[in-house]
Amino acid sequence: MNRQITLASRPVGYPKESDFNLVEVPIPTPGDGEVLVKTLYLSVDPYMRGRINAAKSYAANVEIDEVMVGSVIAEVIETNHSNVEVGDIVNAGIGWQEYGVVGGNGLRKIDPTIAPISTAGGILGMPGLTAYFGLLEVGKLQERETVFVSGAAGAVGSVVGQIAKIKGCRVVGSAGTDEKVAYIVDELGFDDAFNYKEVTDYHEELQRLFPDGIDVYFDNVGGVITDAVFLNLRIKGRVVICGQISQYNLEKPETGPRFLWHMITKRARIEGFLVSEFADQHAEALVEMSEWVRQGKLKYRETVEEGGIESAPAAFISMLKGGNIGKQLVKIADF
Amino acid sequence: MNRQITLASRPVGYPKESDFNLVEVPIPTPGDGEVLVKTLYLSVDPYMRGRINAAKSYAANVEIDEVMVGSVIAEVIETNHSNVEVGDIVNAGIGWQEYGVVGGNGLRKIDPTIAPISTAGGILGMPGLTAYFGLLEVGKLQERETVFVSGAAGAVGSVVGQIAKIKGCRVVGSAGTDEKVAYIVDELGFDDAFNYKEVTDYHEELQRLFPDGIDVYFDNVGGVITDAVFLNLRIKGRVVICGQISQYNLEKPETGPRFLWHMITKRARIEGFLVSEFADQHAEALVEMSEWVRQGKLKYRETVEEGGIESAPAAFISMLKGGNIGKQLVKIADF
Repeated sequence: MNRQITLASRPVGYPKESDFNLVEVPIPTPGDGEVLVKTLYLSVDPYMRGRINAAKSYAANVEIDEVMVGSVIAEVIETNHSNVEVGDIVNAGIGWQEYGVVGGNGLRKIDPTIAPISTAGGILGMPGLTAYFGLLEVGKLQERETVFVSGAAGAVGSVVGQIAKIKGCRVVGSAGTDEKVAYIVDELGFDDAFNYKEVTDYHEELQRLFPDGIDVYFDNVGGVITDAVFLNLRIKGRVVICGQISQYNLEKPETGPRFLWHMITKRARIEGFLVSEFADQHAEALVEMSEWVRQGKLKYRETVEEGGIESAPAAFISMLKGGNIGKQLVKIADF
Repeated sequence: MNRQITLASRPVGYPKESDFNLVEVPIPTPGDGEVLVKTLYLSVDPYMRGRINAAKSYAANVEIDEVMVGSVIAEVIETNHSNVEVGDIVNAGIGWQEYGVVGGNGLRKIDPTIAPISTAGGILGMPGLTAYFGLLEVGKLQERETVFVSGAAGAVGSVVGQIAKIKGCRVVGSAGTDEKVAYIVDELGFDDAFNYKEVTDYHEELQRLFPDGIDVYFDNVGGVITDAVFLNLRIKGRVVICGQISQYNLEKPETGPRFLWHMITKRARIEGFLVSEFADQHAEALVEMSEWVRQGKLKYRETVEEGGIESAPAAFISMLKGGNIGKQLVKIADF
């Protein structure tokens, strides 16, 4: 049998485990040109919170009783496609389930000799690519600029800061525990960091950390930290909007200070993006990033929930509340 | 004698006439390489409101008892510079006064045979260039896109809408009186317009006017109209922040709904700018715009206060409250 996690109800505020159901269905059969995959790791990501709202998001929402969306790292166990072999490790967008059928065309294969296969859900997967293109293509980072990253110990933020260091920039991050702050400074080489739960005046803190202002702000969080950034941008500063996790689980939308006036005085730019816009450059970027990982210039941690498919909702909720360091994964089966 | 308007006190909320003083000083004498000019028209512009705040703006603020900043259209009456002749009409940044001394190098001369000299303060001056570069260079307007302009009957907004029409776009404007709405539709050729004082639900109004969304929003106003735009942007929409006049005269800063989430779902861009960033392209743009004026493709109106230098504060306050259609000028002397 194939076990799946489906959406039971639309969450109000933070999701609860009861917003999800565990169901059993027969293992599907691949048709012509299709392959059957067995999930090894499941990725849980902040963007999924937007996909279970009724409100219009940038992608189709999950309907009630549908399988939760998402990408998995999986092993091919049956193939009807000439380019795919049994035993291939692939990225497949089958959602939260133990088995799934996908078309063989364009399936992204993972080379297990480069790095552990779990990295295909993190530093060498969507989160790593999001950091790469957000910082370099959207943020147009230049050498020796100053960079601030919120959500800096997460799957995306931790890569943003390290790429900024590779580019010779000064980089500061914010995160939600002292352990995360120590991790990004001591292990990842950020120049500085602060625990946003222990700072009350973000404007003052950013002024102290960036006496000459911020060139690029990579925003994973939104809310009050982001408000303070607008007071500390440099002329021609860029604000890359990657995520707004502080806003995803609010029961009522927040208001905040109006800041567009600062955009004129600073001739600044705010830009949102999706990593999929850069799909034709992903392969090339992964070559560069794999080399950085090999050289030890890009380090990573993973937070792996070992409890199988039934633990995916708890892992997702924990990640939304900041329980992870680095990429949050759920291990479904042994490789 | 030379009469000047100086800043008497920093306004709280809308400026009052008592925030300004009229003073008399001797007419200055030009030194080597300098010229003495006599003001014909004085320009009053929204940006000046920011310059009389104590808060840091994008340019140096006016101190108490200093002459108000600004650009004038003036006649050269004495010259110590070989490239400037008596009788030349020039743009000079001497502020609110009847006479002033400026360096002759790089002084921008106005050709009175192209259009009335007053246009050098409006459609063929800083406001016209602001519209041109904001829409085409910052907004990257493409043919057949949809454009929304707030403050559409003002010196900048009225030009934005007409350039968008020249580029084959659908353009809608908002303004604060029925007369202005009629003007921009009937005389300037906007596709549609609304009186923002008579609309209560801007989101609904913009949905009606832009059923497929807005590609470029040229923002002169900010506040609640701008809030509604973020709900109606198209994928890859651009928001050009030119002014935020609704916010300049508030006694307390406003808050508004957080909207950065929309920037991700729409992969949208917000960008602020100053026309001075494009200084090296101004001359070329003025050639193109002069031709559009000559062809009748760019129309304009001016609101001219005839009461001399002593009427400048009243004209400035009236402009901030929306009393003008097109460019607000103060006539100081006959040409």
